[in-house]
Amino acid sequence: MSGTSRRPLVLDLDTGIDDALALAYALGSPEVELVAVICSYGNVAVDTAVRNTHALLELLGYPDIPVYRGADRALSASAAFEPPEGVARIHGANGLGGQHLGCMCRRAPGDGVDFLVGKSRPLHEGKYRAHLPAGTPLVYGSSFYYVPTGPLTNLASALVRAPELARTLSRVTFMGGALTVPGNVTPCAEANVHNDPEAADVVLRLGLPTRMIGLDVTHQVVLTREDTARWRALGTSAGVLFADMTDHYIDIYEQNNPHMGGCALHDPLAVAAAIDPSLVGCLGANLCVDLEGPTRGRTVCDPERLCDAQKTCEVAVTVDAPRFLAEFRKRVGRVLGAPRAR
Amino acid sequence: MSGTSRRPLVLDLDTGIDDALALAYALGSPEVELVAVICSYGNVAVDTAVRNTHALLELLGYPDIPVYRGADRALSASAAFEPPEGVARIHGANGLGGQHLGCMCRRAPGDGVDFLVGKSRPLHEGKYRAHLPAGTPLVYGSSFYYVPTGPLTNLASALVRAPELARTLSRVTFMGGALTVPGNVTPCAEANVHNDPEAADVVLRLGLPTRMIGLDVTHQVVLTREDTARWRALGTSAGVLFADMTDHYIDIYEQNNPHMGGCALHDPLAVAAAIDPSLVGCLGANLCVDLEGPTRGRTVCDPERLCDAQKTCEVAVTVDAPRFLAEFRKRVGRVLGAPRAR
Repeated sequence: MSGTSRRPLVLDLDTGIDDALALAYALGSPEVELVAVICSYGNVAVDTAVRNTHALLELLGYPDIPVYRGADRALSASAAFEPPEGVARIHGANGLGGQHLGCMCRRAPGDGVDFLVGKSRPLHEGKYRAHLPAGTPLVYGSSFYYVPTGPLTNLASALVRAPELARTLSRVTFMGGALTVPGNVTPCAEANVHNDPEAADVVLRLGLPTRMIGLDVTHQVVLTREDTARWRALGTSAGVLFADMTDHYIDIYEQNNPHMGGCALHDPLAVAAAIDPSLVGCLGANLCVDLEGPTRGRTVCDPERLCDAQKTCEVAVTVDAPRFLAEFRKRVGRVLGAPRAR
Repeated sequence: MSGTSRRPLVLDLDTGIDDALALAYALGSPEVELVAVICSYGNVAVDTAVRNTHALLELLGYPDIPVYRGADRALSASAAFEPPEGVARIHGANGLGGQHLGCMCRRAPGDGVDFLVGKSRPLHEGKYRAHLPAGTPLVYGSSFYYVPTGPLTNLASALVRAPELARTLSRVTFMGGALTVPGNVTPCAEANVHNDPEAADVVLRLGLPTRMIGLDVTHQVVLTREDTARWRALGTSAGVLFADMTDHYIDIYEQNNPHMGGCALHDPLAVAAAIDPSLVGCLGANLCVDLEGPTRGRTVCDPERLCDAQKTCEVAVTVDAPRFLAEFRKRVGRVLGAPRAR
């Protein structure tokens, strides 16, 4: 598939373990071209996310994909986010299950929110391209996929600064929330929404069309040690590192969610559903986020917009798990075993 | 439509205002024959529910339909249920918005749970009928609709006494719960489940196939004063009483839920969806009920059964509100304006 026929993809990662798996899924998907990664905080602090993303892109053979530094804290937070002990345990202190990657980190990252706002320009791609010198990176206007797999702080900040994004960003698929299942931080709150409920509420209320890939479906797609063993057997540094990193994640799932028999593939499913929405079955809903009391961080239908015919969010409530897992194995295996991977 | 071609229906009401509307909907539905009403507590105390049900059946011209007295309290409660002040305000102190009905109340009611257990006998209707003297009321085995619109205490009690009910009761449509929307008693709990979370949990976990008509859909079907004005204009006692009673209910909704523009038709929608499931769109789910902490009374997908291919509950998440409202107006209007109504 030629580069020009691939749809641009921007990821927005808080680069922990399943973010790394999502990155590999994206790089292994011929339908898309990963044009940038914005980083945020959540599984790790933002600067760790930037460093991990750089290191993973180098490891997987894509050192030139630009990485942007996004928000370092929730909209309402007074200090930069540092992962609490429980989170550091899940993803390892460095966010990658304790696996250490060397990284050249040649580039000082640009600002992630600036980048996202810049992308709001509703320019026709072809027309815009004609005015650019050859070799200039394209700005894709509204035609790109945007997949945040951490808190929605960057997107909310961009929407507040550039409300026209609500019209021009048409392909947002986010990992986060829990509509029909319990949360994973509190009985009601999923981690990404928990990390910035106000940001998620802004995004969900502003009329931006979104697709939500929440715990409703991500807890149905489970990776086992059989898969990580296959990666290790690939004989590449990337295969071994991803296997060791993911085994750490599976260890934690075996302690916290023993009934699952493996680890949930939260972030990769969001990338997969952005590329191929037929992997999930959705319920149209006008969501909001509870901001007060013990249900803070819950994603729930907004009672005042319950009867509106138009729904702004497609909430994934079913998933074709076998088909997704087959795609995941194929695409991630392709990247981890490729000659360009170290 | 002849009596023999109509499917038997058993209602289980905590007879307040919307239960009365559900009763009228059932009596106005040619597809079903209302063969019994079991009563419970919730909108009112159980004995008030029995009295109200008798009175409404007389008013509407069906004095011979048997009424059974079900549970008077939640499974875990130590004293019989009396409605708290907030509930008494919604449905009126007598459960019917302060409208007083004379009632002959000739019959001492049988026990509701005994009645339900008796119905669990998995007898083939035709075969059974052959052994009965002419005129004996039929026991319909598993072929009847059962529609509880109050707490699920009677059903849970019956299931505990006769677990075979989980196999033979195949047409249970209950009003209760809130999967994708906030509760109406707490941020998480809907009133019927709130009144007996343990009973709802038993019902949802035991493998009984059910259809849930919760706030997800009942808050989308709204009755206005235009409708009650039409009933008043019918010139029957029943029309006037139902109009006055429902106006009281609309008053309360205008105070508590001003954005709705009328009152929710909770219980009638459950009866309607039992008769015609195509009125709602459902999500298959294996639900449980939170029993502890601030989310007590929440209906939510059971994480441990999330990946089970078989789902025991069809949760209504969309509703064809215009079509339901048209059916509601037709059927309830038919009953309130009929010559047999007083």
